[in-house]
Amino acid sequence: MKREKKRILLLCAGGTIACRPGDDGLRPALDSQELLSHLNSMTSTYDIYPLDLFSLDSSNIQPEHWQTAARCIWEELSSHTWDGIVLTHGTDTMGYTAAMLSYMLVNPPVPIVLTGSQLPLENALTDGYENLRCAFAMAASGVPGVFVAFQHRIILGTRAVKTRSSRFDAFESVNAPLAGTVSAAGLSLNREAIPVISGEFSLRANLNEKVFLVKLTPGIHPEIFHWLAQAGYQGIIIETFGAGGMAFLRRNLVECLGELTARGICVAAVSQCLYDGSDLSVYESGRMALQNGIWGARDMTAEAAVTKMMWCLGQEGEDVRSLFFTPRFGEISPE
Amino acid sequence: MKREKKRILLLCAGGTIACRPGDDGLRPALDSQELLSHLNSMTSTYDIYPLDLFSLDSSNIQPEHWQTAARCIWEELSSHTWDGIVLTHGTDTMGYTAAMLSYMLVNPPVPIVLTGSQLPLENALTDGYENLRCAFAMAASGVPGVFVAFQHRIILGTRAVKTRSSRFDAFESVNAPLAGTVSAAGLSLNREAIPVISGEFSLRANLNEKVFLVKLTPGIHPEIFHWLAQAGYQGIIIETFGAGGMAFLRRNLVECLGELTARGICVAAVSQCLYDGSDLSVYESGRMALQNGIWGARDMTAEAAVTKMMWCLGQEGEDVRSLFFTPRFGEISPE
Repeated sequence: MKREKKRILLLCAGGTIACRPGDDGLRPALDSQELLSHLNSMTSTYDIYPLDLFSLDSSNIQPEHWQTAARCIWEELSSHTWDGIVLTHGTDTMGYTAAMLSYMLVNPPVPIVLTGSQLPLENALTDGYENLRCAFAMAASGVPGVFVAFQHRIILGTRAVKTRSSRFDAFESVNAPLAGTVSAAGLSLNREAIPVISGEFSLRANLNEKVFLVKLTPGIHPEIFHWLAQAGYQGIIIETFGAGGMAFLRRNLVECLGELTARGICVAAVSQCLYDGSDLSVYESGRMALQNGIWGARDMTAEAAVTKMMWCLGQEGEDVRSLFFTPRFGEISPE
Repeated sequence: MKREKKRILLLCAGGTIACRPGDDGLRPALDSQELLSHLNSMTSTYDIYPLDLFSLDSSNIQPEHWQTAARCIWEELSSHTWDGIVLTHGTDTMGYTAAMLSYMLVNPPVPIVLTGSQLPLENALTDGYENLRCAFAMAASGVPGVFVAFQHRIILGTRAVKTRSSRFDAFESVNAPLAGTVSAAGLSLNREAIPVISGEFSLRANLNEKVFLVKLTPGIHPEIFHWLAQAGYQGIIIETFGAGGMAFLRRNLVECLGELTARGICVAAVSQCLYDGSDLSVYESGRMALQNGIWGARDMTAEAAVTKMMWCLGQEGEDVRSLFFTPRFGEISPE
């Protein structure tokens, strides 16, 4: 009996993996068919169907692209029988895209796996094949959700942070265990780390892009926050010091942010420390922040928090705070 | 013959290590004498002289505090014979302070070692003793420079980044090897990792605090840069995606920053990836950035770059760009 091959949609958005050297530096060049033509060992295992989405350096991937990608995936899954989707994407903003797709695609029925590479597929040292092999294995796993596959690691889309700009192990699973690993023993999933998806598949692609991330530095003047309010920003993510610290002497950021929250602007605090997150209840400055209406985003990554704030503010008729604190796909741990 | 004890100045600036629990959360409470009274095993080895500098949560440490600290250290070293200085300081902004002191104190004659803790010294689980032991060992080493000592690691002051908000191994040496480690074998220094200091000791405590750090997020609108220029900011550090990526389609950040650099505003790019730094020469978007007058800060940390920009802009009669790219104490690697 012939084992049925899994049907995988290969959605290509550009990125280093599709780059060729040009006069002005690396730029995306391979389309999805060309990319597929390189994947011999994978095409014998999976039925792979290529589709071009974008051909972009992911530094140029912006909120409207997240919406296009989410709509495309929604339509593909609504009108065809796919066992999984692999989305090749630049690594630079892959963490942001993976988080946003985790919110926009509600209860996806199959694995949606983002991958890319640190060197172009046509470079002799490329990591692209390795990453694609892992991504296809995850896409064929039958475990639904949005994931990043990179250097033998499978990471929840809401927990993937690019921590290395050059080395091949570019992504970490931040403040959450790996969803899986790939070794000679095959794909090994960590089921406890993967939220179970149930319910009807739907698309919620609205967002509000008037969200700004402010990473604090010592001496930062509160005037930036007044300007953000004036300029119509409706959500602010603060990358605080340590477990949630922000100045309240001389340059009183806490009081200033309190004025903004009183006017209905949503302000949430994450930590500028890569690991361990924030806890506003420990220090005096954190408690003052809570009293001033600032939300403690606990162990969320900056990538997951910025995209979630945009997404929550885009959902009409919903309580933004309650939506922000309700996990969609493992992006925030229970209190 | 009695071995002479090393004379170490213990300069206290507050921070968690000096905290006591209060009604409003942890806040600095122990003064330098109280801190010293806890250090039995260390006072038998070193002659320790306590001095109070600040009693601040380091989220409240701001540029004027860096100047006060640098002046105090300068005066102490000019008027007394110290073998070394230990500066206890909150961990939240220790990386920024350590970098700035590395610039302000030119050719310091002795080790100046910052340390602190993740739990107060009076907490039964404190890491403070461990960190102080390492800091005193480094302060007595005779190797001049500004360092951070934390959890058995000695880190150049220009390379220390707080990467964990809760775990004890809070600091990493980012894009540079450790300056030393502490084990049962004692303090082991990595001499090759420590720039050799020679020349006359001097104080250069001027700075210009009109510097702003912008961490990019997908969709960020160029209007922020116009506002920064209008508000009189003279230096901007961009935390770019990956190896130096920033959008140039739709929301053209590169062109907008080019307008600012043409008006004499200094703009330098670091990476928002914790490790590996930036290289603007690789991708199309990076090359466009270079053509638009943006400086590639290569492997500098955000902490080292923001403080260095403030410091460079404060040095009158100097070429800011040349000063920015000249290493002061290992903060930037050669091209």
